[in-house]
Amino acid sequence: MNARTDLALESVNAAKISEGITKTERGKAFKITEIKIAEDKHGEKIGKKKGRYITLEGSPLSNFSDEFKNMCTEFSEELSQFIPDGRVLAVGLGNNDITPDALGPQAAAKILATRHLREELGDEDEFLSGLRPVGVLASGVLGQTGIETAELIEGLMEKINPSAIIAIDALACSDVNRLGKTIQLSDAGISPGSGVQNKRHELSQDTLGVPVIAVGVPTVVDMHTIVEDYTGKAVNTDLPNMMVTPRDIDRLIERSAAMIAAGINMALHPQLSFEDIEAIMY
Amino acid sequence: MNARTDLALESVNAAKISEGITKTERGKAFKITEIKIAEDKHGEKIGKKKGRYITLEGSPLSNFSDEFKNMCTEFSEELSQFIPDGRVLAVGLGNNDITPDALGPQAAAKILATRHLREELGDEDEFLSGLRPVGVLASGVLGQTGIETAELIEGLMEKINPSAIIAIDALACSDVNRLGKTIQLSDAGISPGSGVQNKRHELSQDTLGVPVIAVGVPTVVDMHTIVEDYTGKAVNTDLPNMMVTPRDIDRLIERSAAMIAAGINMALHPQLSFEDIEAIMY
Amino acid sequence: MNARTDLALESVNAAKISEGITKTERGKAFKITEIKIAEDKHGEKIGKKKGRYITLEGSPLSNFSDEFKNMCTEFSEELSQFIPDGRVLAVGLGNNDITPDALGPQAAAKILATRHLREELGDEDEFLSGLRPVGVLASGVLGQTGIETAELIEGLMEKINPSAIIAIDALACSDVNRLGKTIQLSDAGISPGSGVQNKRHELSQDTLGVPVIAVGVPTVVDMHTIVEDYTGKAVNTDLPNMMVTPRDIDRLIERSAAMIAAGINMALHPQLSFEDIEAIMY
Amino acid sequence: MNARTDLALESVNAAKISEGITKTERGKAFKITEIKIAEDKHGEKIGKKKGRYITLEGSPLSNFSDEFKNMCTEFSEELSQFIPDGRVLAVGLGNNDITPDALGPQAAAKILATRHLREELGDEDEFLSGLRPVGVLASGVLGQTGIETAELIEGLMEKINPSAIIAIDALACSDVNRLGKTIQLSDAGISPGSGVQNKRHELSQDTLGVPVIAVGVPTVVDMHTIVEDYTGKAVNTDLPNMMVTPRDIDRLIERSAAMIAAGINMALHPQLSFEDIEAIMY
Repeated sequence: MNARTDLALESVNAAKISEGITKTERGKAFKITEIKIAEDKHGEKIGKKKGRYITLEGSPLSNFSDEFKNMCTEFSEELSQFIPDGRVLAVGLGNNDITPDALGPQAAAKILATRHLREELGDEDEFLSGLRPVGVLASGVLGQTGIETAELIEGLMEKINPSAIIAIDALACSDVNRLGKTIQLSDAGISPGSGVQNKRHELSQDTLGVPVIAVGVPTVVDMHTIVEDYTGKAVNTDLPNMMVTPRDIDRLIERSAAMIAAGINMALHPQLSFEDIEAIMY
Repeated sequence: MNARTDLALESVNAAKISEGITKTERGKAFKITEIKIAEDKHGEKIGKKKGRYITLEGSPLSNFSDEFKNMCTEFSEELSQFIPDGRVLAVGLGNNDITPDALGPQAAAKILATRHLREELGDEDEFLSGLRPVGVLASGVLGQTGIETAELIEGLMEKINPSAIIAIDALACSDVNRLGKTIQLSDAGISPGSGVQNKRHELSQDTLGVPVIAVGVPTVVDMHTIVEDYTGKAVNTDLPNMMVTPRDIDRLIERSAAMIAAGINMALHPQLSFEDIEAIMY
Repeated sequence: MNARTDLALESVNAAKISEGITKTERGKAFKITEIKIAEDKHGEKIGKKKGRYITLEGSPLSNFSDEFKNMCTEFSEELSQFIPDGRVLAVGLGNNDITPDALGPQAAAKILATRHLREELGDEDEFLSGLRPVGVLASGVLGQTGIETAELIEGLMEKINPSAIIAIDALACSDVNRLGKTIQLSDAGISPGSGVQNKRHELSQDTLGVPVIAVGVPTVVDMHTIVEDYTGKAVNTDLPNMMVTPRDIDRLIERSAAMIAAGINMALHPQLSFEDIEAIMY
Repeated sequence: MNARTDLALESVNAAKISEGITKTERGKAFKITEIKIAEDKHGEKIGKKKGRYITLEGSPLSNFSDEFKNMCTEFSEELSQFIPDGRVLAVGLGNNDITPDALGPQAAAKILATRHLREELGDEDEFLSGLRPVGVLASGVLGQTGIETAELIEGLMEKINPSAIIAIDALACSDVNRLGKTIQLSDAGISPGSGVQNKRHELSQDTLGVPVIAVGVPTVVDMHTIVEDYTGKAVNTDLPNMMVTPRDIDRLIERSAAMIAAGINMALHPQLSFEDIEAIMY
């Protein structure tokens, strides 16, 4: 088991496990791999719960791409499978003051909040009032707030009564070829800060009672993992280690947050065109 | 009644009311006026609930001042009267993307969150574990989140179980001489966005069950009010109107947020010196 | 004479002068007024040098507008008249840390710098190498740098050898109906900080030897002027005064900087479409 | 020769050269190593010109340190040796929009600009008028401006007539133990972007006619170098490579820029105390 990745694809590959695990490939704009873990016990060895884990691999998300619309669309289609009808709560996890950890807050800032429109607009604007009700939360981190993200969400469940939660977070990976080039989607929930900080309360169907769809991009890797990835040999763990992130992390966060937010907006509001969504987001 | 001020002092003066209302003056670093409204009915005419409203008036909060420490200390002493023992939840209201409305989020970012320290540190660091538990929330605004601040706080009451809430918000005033020069403190609660947007759910002891201490600085005034303030005459309300803010609003927000956060930290943690608090805040 | 406006239109109207001054109107997306001052002596009374001053008035530039493309195009066409063939130096004046003064730096950040492309790309990319050479400078302010903008530009004249300079700056106005709703274009040069600070060295054809095209948006107004504008009567100048700016100044700066940069890019590179320019700017 | 470091200490160590090169150690708050290269020919093999290269190594500059004042003071003392009497131009190199490259602009923003004070204040404030005249420039990068930093500075030489230039830039290193923990000082000048981009025009006494004192902190390292540093073996250069930076790069830039600016301010204005300088900087 390799503890230093949040990507199920990497854990499954590294551990060479197969019992109760299936792998399917597809995709155009991205190379898409879907891993299905049948039961918790099958994923135990790699610390992954049962569920579907979809990895979209492509070119660096920090670069401008002519394929942007196609990438957003394909991501949005993959995401749509997981989203039931009804109200949704979108949560951006992570720390906006630490660039490699700011994916969640930056994406949340571009997700359309619509939950208040029905009450505010009523019959005045039937189109806007008819949009699926979405609440958006950027949660801050425990050290800054003294409040766990799980507590914030639990406190809102009764009020918002969502049929699903979408949680966006920055991830760690172990293969440097996936750093900044990959989106992972999963219905198995998330533990905020699992990749980069102490374990926090889990956000999952078990703890919140509704599906928790996790969306993430690997933005960090540690130096030992880099060395192992290049050499295929383990590093003496007594040697100092450090989490690093690509030099162009500012653009990576900006562009991948834009792609994820666009894809989420498309999946939540299929009646809006890509162009409508772009116009509203900027 | 003048609807265009959030300062009780201005409303009371403008309406020339006195029944059930007392006014006391004190202060060194600031000119401090305390207004006490005995019952809701006494403040009805000016739209203010019963409670204590303390106004601290001084030189422009946007300027560097040699008196900074004294001002923080005096503000902190006034605030201390309102704060019971026990856990506190501090909430920054307003929109961080609109500079004149960013006082709440900016101040919240400098308030020490300590609620998690006891569990995280335990006996490791008795000093830090011994600090009063404080949770901090910067709430976002309804249009960005689809979630009312009141809903967020209500959802947290059971989990945090605070003995008081401190809510920081930017205010409107009617006397341009108070714009950017005044702090108002009150135990009468607050309606987020009352000064500058649509009415939202009230945050008060009535709605939340614990004292809600409101702290604010007037950062906006409307043009009609400016004209009335200079000329003493009402403006034809058919003429266009516009909310404005001082040209040096960036510095006003930065420095007044620092003063308010320092004063709150001092009031909540009297065992810390001003210098300790400055060092932690930066 | 009214010293508190940078708009020639307002000065001419207020002073009711006409000798040597012509006024023409046109425009679709904007109401456009062109004022021509024949000789320096004709504009002396209002502190304006000879030259053409074009004012584009419309709806609030801070609002999203369906007319954005048309407004950019019309502004770009007006600007094109002033721009000779050859190299251009674009300069953003003002202070990026003071939101109402950040128009220049924010617009400069979105102007395409192309001067280095010919040398860097050569025959590799004939299209990019064929673009008009443009250098871009965001100058900072004297108090932060100890260096006058005029010094910086003079130092570059020999190296860049531009055939014209475009200087973008935030302005003051006297009619609150023009605040945040107007663009002024002029070939009469500019004195950095004239609207809001001490007089600085002039940037003009006289001082730099090439046309200096000034582009600005009024973002501030002082309180005395507001009162005079509403009441038609002078304010006792002994009363305190203060520069103010609209509450939505962040959006005003963001959107007007985007419009001005788009218009400048279109005027400098007519071979690029509006859509190309939008794509490069974001 | 190892091209992937900007630290002379690392190049000298790696190349095991000694002819014409001396090494001295000292320091309290930092471990300080001074390397002196007698003639250009002695440093040719490692791509370093003749001059003095001082490396200050310590704990992570991104962490809060009780030793901050001592570290600033020791850095300031080392810097003082290089600074002649008279006017100084300080230049922040790099790109403020790319966090690991923002050291120069961030430090420049905290260096006191005093060159204009004499003219502005005259006899009004003899203390401020008596400060050494300092001009400050944050240069932007060629791709954003189309203007080489060297051109900007050359254009100002005649106007400012400085007796020395201080140039601050982010660096690359090859030993991960120095990443974010080291300051390099040198009188051998600098080539902007040498660590992380294409070669640009050199800034040095040869090109500008006055001493150019370079100050830098290593903020990036490439993955191949990490692997070689851990394993002692060369990486197949056909394998993909990537520049990376520590996960806490935001704090590293903020705190190291503050230390460098404080040290520069202390060295330029010895009549000001550390406390005075701290007060002015914030």
